[in-house]
Amino acid sequence: MTVQGPSAVVLRAHRTDLAQPPSSVLEVVTLPPQEPAAGQVRVRNLFQQVIAASGDLMFATSQIPVPVFRVGEPIHGPAIGRVVESRADDLPVGTVVLHTSGWREESILEPGEAFPVPDGVFPGPEYLLNQGVPAYHGIVDIAGVGEGDVVLVSGAAGGVGSMAAQIANARGAASVIGIAGGPEKARYLVDELGLDAAIDHRGDDLDERLTELAPDGITVFFDTIGGAQFEAALRHAAPGARFALCGTLAGQIGGDGGHPRLDLMTAIAREVQIRPFSTRHTPEQIEAWSSHYAQWYADGRIRFARTLLDGTLQRAVTAQDELLAGVHRGNVVVRLAGSAGHTSGHE
Amino acid sequence: MTVQGPSAVVLRAHRTDLAQPPSSVLEVVTLPPQEPAAGQVRVRNLFQQVIAASGDLMFATSQIPVPVFRVGEPIHGPAIGRVVESRADDLPVGTVVLHTSGWREESILEPGEAFPVPDGVFPGPEYLLNQGVPAYHGIVDIAGVGEGDVVLVSGAAGGVGSMAAQIANARGAASVIGIAGGPEKARYLVDELGLDAAIDHRGDDLDERLTELAPDGITVFFDTIGGAQFEAALRHAAPGARFALCGTLAGQIGGDGGHPRLDLMTAIAREVQIRPFSTRHTPEQIEAWSSHYAQWYADGRIRFARTLLDGTLQRAVTAQDELLAGVHRGNVVVRLAGSAGHTSGHE
Repeated sequence: MTVQGPSAVVLRAHRTDLAQPPSSVLEVVTLPPQEPAAGQVRVRNLFQQVIAASGDLMFATSQIPVPVFRVGEPIHGPAIGRVVESRADDLPVGTVVLHTSGWREESILEPGEAFPVPDGVFPGPEYLLNQGVPAYHGIVDIAGVGEGDVVLVSGAAGGVGSMAAQIANARGAASVIGIAGGPEKARYLVDELGLDAAIDHRGDDLDERLTELAPDGITVFFDTIGGAQFEAALRHAAPGARFALCGTLAGQIGGDGGHPRLDLMTAIAREVQIRPFSTRHTPEQIEAWSSHYAQWYADGRIRFARTLLDGTLQRAVTAQDELLAGVHRGNVVVRLAGSAGHTSGHE
Repeated sequence: MTVQGPSAVVLRAHRTDLAQPPSSVLEVVTLPPQEPAAGQVRVRNLFQQVIAASGDLMFATSQIPVPVFRVGEPIHGPAIGRVVESRADDLPVGTVVLHTSGWREESILEPGEAFPVPDGVFPGPEYLLNQGVPAYHGIVDIAGVGEGDVVLVSGAAGGVGSMAAQIANARGAASVIGIAGGPEKARYLVDELGLDAAIDHRGDDLDERLTELAPDGITVFFDTIGGAQFEAALRHAAPGARFALCGTLAGQIGGDGGHPRLDLMTAIAREVQIRPFSTRHTPEQIEAWSSHYAQWYADGRIRFARTLLDGTLQRAVTAQDELLAGVHRGNVVVRLAGSAGHTSGHE
């Protein structure tokens, strides 16, 4: 007799080409039911986060410093779930936890892998699924944004960029300019997230707009895109500008956006400090962000920009394609069917 | 009556294209004789230094932070001369001085523009014509080279690179690898300058050699070239490597070497710190280099890599083309005809 267990998203084959949509190599399958061993808990997942890096982990080799996905096995990623069976004293049934073993209906976790979600800090537990750690690290530790800075953020309507831009604002930057795709996202950056200005890279001329918005040049560039946006940022860099390079969505969707041209003479003449960084989510980085996030959120200085989708694991798979296509705004989270009671009224 | 004065090199027209040899826009002309005013000296030049940056200054606009050359006027550059007429008390006739108003047989200088060459420190005064300031600044202040570093220097047989590589050695780097063009220059780097290894970028496969010479990656890259050598350095960068970018000869000779591809994912995954710098020859930078240069030279730890050519100003003009073509080794200096008595027996 076969017992029907919970579903999980399994990697069927490695991606071999960036043009291949992630969904083409993923399959939702039913796994045998699993019981938690001593010290473990069984978690029913409520929210699945969808991030660009997952697309990279589907290749046989990846430069991202986390384990790549393996063919024939479930993939992993950040999720939030509720403990439904516990063999760990400190994680009683009912505890809502953040963890990184998502992409399945149920996850078996060790206590060290499950972080209880604090009550009452945010409107919903999915607020913990955000990309503020690299944003905070990049803006604060790498670029050292402070008063007087003219900050440009690419992918500013994205999960990381929306946080980075708001953190720069909260740190007292003189001006924060966001780049996003499409007039709607551009409007959102200014009207909802409180940025000083926005550039629609699809409709606007990047150079014209930057000349207009930053006549003395940008002093900080926080990049999640690469490609032509990196190249434009360098053309508009002020002497001594700091570039915090966090990601390269333009490279992750194919084409040559992951390999922009580095104009050496300009970089040399202006002594632009180019600092690519790979956040490793150290306990210190997580702690630094968490404390500021809660406070800034309470003060109304940070909004959680996100797209909340309702559905199943299959919906999350589709959302992974959509994320790389730039369809969604902010952090992308799928509220998994059956997670009733975990809604959030506002962003 | 027209009195025949000293010769000078005048810019006839701006360069408009990197493929245009500098000599095509330069002309040696005779200027009216000039008398020093009160406080000035007249200097007969003995040695003319030839540097890559001069080629850039022949364009109507240049990003190098010194005045560009103007059409119809003499060009300028580092030279060494002897005071032949003095109206400045602190610069008596016979004083040998370093200055930046060269490219002419005679220069009229203010005392603040003329730096007396110390006696007996080096075999010849042309040893003061070197590019050690940016080399020292880049290796020490920008890259912070110390023990344990695996240092790669591009253009290592050039005027800046030869100093940078030797300074890295003198600072105790674990290994210093130089890249140069041709087997002769490569041999020179190891046999004469004491580098640990050399790569001939014309004959060797850069990636193969770097894999062999730096199996754990390079921790420092000092770049004077750009182009494919920058790209290869990034492929072989160790985590946290520091890149001190000082120049882009590959860009200065045309082609797209001044705009190498920046592989963002590699740079991010390895957190390579990319620091282009434009040395401004501050008094502090000059002082820092000068004190070390004299000491290291006395200790036999630094050799002055140079090509000494004999001739006239016209020879210097030709040498400017040759420099950009990579013909010469080390710092290129023309010993001007009539400078008898200022020879140097060894390097």
